[in-house]
Amino acid sequence: MVGTGPGSIEHLSPRALKALQEADVIAGYKTYIELIAPIVEGKEIISTGMTREVERCRAAIQRARGGQKVALVSSGDPGVYGMAGLALEILHRENLFDQVEVEIIPGITSATAAAALLGAPLMHDFVVMSLSDLLTPWEVIEKRLALAAQGDFVVVLYNPASHKRTSQIRRARELLLQHKKASTPVGIVRKAYRDGEEVVITDLEHMLDHPLDMFSIVIIGNNQTQRMGNFLVTPRGYAL
Amino acid sequence: MVGTGPGSIEHLSPRALKALQEADVIAGYKTYIELIAPIVEGKEIISTGMTREVERCRAAIQRARGGQKVALVSSGDPGVYGMAGLALEILHRENLFDQVEVEIIPGITSATAAAALLGAPLMHDFVVMSLSDLLTPWEVIEKRLALAAQGDFVVVLYNPASHKRTSQIRRARELLLQHKKASTPVGIVRKAYRDGEEVVITDLEHMLDHPLDMFSIVIIGNNQTQRMGNFLVTPRGYAL
Ligand SMILES: C[S@@+](CC[C@H](N)C(=O)[O-])C[C@H]1O[C@@H](n2cnc3c(N)ncnc32)[C@H](O)[C@@H]1O
Ligand SMILES: C[S@@+](CC[C@H](N)C(=O)[O-])C[C@H]1O[C@@H](n2cnc3c(N)ncnc32)[C@H](O)[C@@H]1O
Repeated sequence: MVGTGPGSIEHLSPRALKALQEADVIAGYKTYIELIAPIVEGKEIISTGMTREVERCRAAIQRARGGQKVALVSSGDPGVYGMAGLALEILHRENLFDQVEVEIIPGITSATAAAALLGAPLMHDFVVMSLSDLLTPWEVIEKRLALAAQGDFVVVLYNPASHKRTSQIRRARELLLQHKKASTPVGIVRKAYRDGEEVVITDLEHMLDHPLDMFSIVIIGNNQTQRMGNFLVTPRGYAL
Repeated sequence: MVGTGPGSIEHLSPRALKALQEADVIAGYKTYIELIAPIVEGKEIISTGMTREVERCRAAIQRARGGQKVALVSSGDPGVYGMAGLALEILHRENLFDQVEVEIIPGITSATAAAALLGAPLMHDFVVMSLSDLLTPWEVIEKRLALAAQGDFVVVLYNPASHKRTSQIRRARELLLQHKKASTPVGIVRKAYRDGEEVVITDLEHMLDHPLDMFSIVIIGNNQTQRMGNFLVTPRGYAL
């Protein structure tokens, strides 16, 4: 289970590169596989659409049971809204840990990749949440947003919106505004370290003026987060 | 500002490697510089002890103003309890953004590195917190721990303990136990991807039976987190 980082091969670890090179089969969502195309050229590819994760995982496990080396690819880190959990769950339920050797190879997750492009917004305690309610009841997400805001955490939102899911980010903003000021700085990064990268610094009041989609990640500051030059910084509290 | 990943050079990105190779001067805490010694051999090193971050940052900025290429090194990601925020703050306060060109190079942070060694405990919404109260009032930390537990977040604790700071982790456990079951799985990873790496899976009840220090990170599950074979997994909720 290989994390390929946010996008460009410059941010893929040598361990991940080696695993991809050694693999007989590459399984993953097609957009991610395209990003690493030069590395995996000529290999067998198992690539299904975004919502067929379970199927793709089973196909990957099937090949591994047959003795092939399979790289199950996630962008970013495989353990942050990636494929690692699902694959381990299937192996566990089907009692396959004896038959398949597993290694999880970490990657640079999009939270810290986006943060690096923005400056240093994650220097203090933060929450990582997904706004996708496909697998999580929306009430749970609302509750967590409210608690994160109460705790003055920096908040990182994965999966903030898609073509169909547009109300969630509006509601999230409302909940955050109950405990965070409208002037709280917000960073939006789209396609971090990929072609078409966009980096925006705005605030809670104006964040919805900027387009958001499934290639975007949103970072909302705490009450100390400031704009410094072109950067967004959450000071940690050093005496300067 | 370069993130060198959790430890071994296998987990350092090509972008970070290139920055280290091109640098005239390497600044950072000495333990981290030792980990990348083969890469930085022969370069000028600015290395001070752990508590002299401000001094080290100023020295690095001084060299950069003088026209040298300086790599200010953090382990993991430079923007997660690393040096990026402090350096940007100093540049901002001293009005130096015109004089010094800045790039922040992300790295694999220890939360996801440790998670990969444990399995996939971070597959659902999580909180990243530091238990160090050197720069943050302990009341703020307590409040955040309580809210994180109420929200049933997975909780990642950086800086859980040191020789001098041993009460914080005990108190943190008590607060978490107010909303999480004693049987909640806990992963402890020490020196992830370094010599002497140790990986332990335990639970909230027994977590204090294991040694914790400043090379350890602790991951406490949510109410779904389970042990599966030798792995710790937080299921995301796929129908299987
Ligand atoms: C299915 S999750 C995968 C996350 C991935 N495993 C990681 O660790 O970054 C997809 C979401 O991650 C975020 N994301 C992934 N790559 C990104 C990138 N290069 N730039 C901005 N956001 C990204 C977006 O929020 C997107 O909706
Ligand atoms: C000053 S913080 C630096 C964090 C670093 N910037 C990162 O992104 O991982 C130091 C803390 O990070 C955690 N840490 C850093 N490297 C680690 C490793 N290899 N294994 C386990 N924990 C680690 C420990 O909790 C340690 O006390």
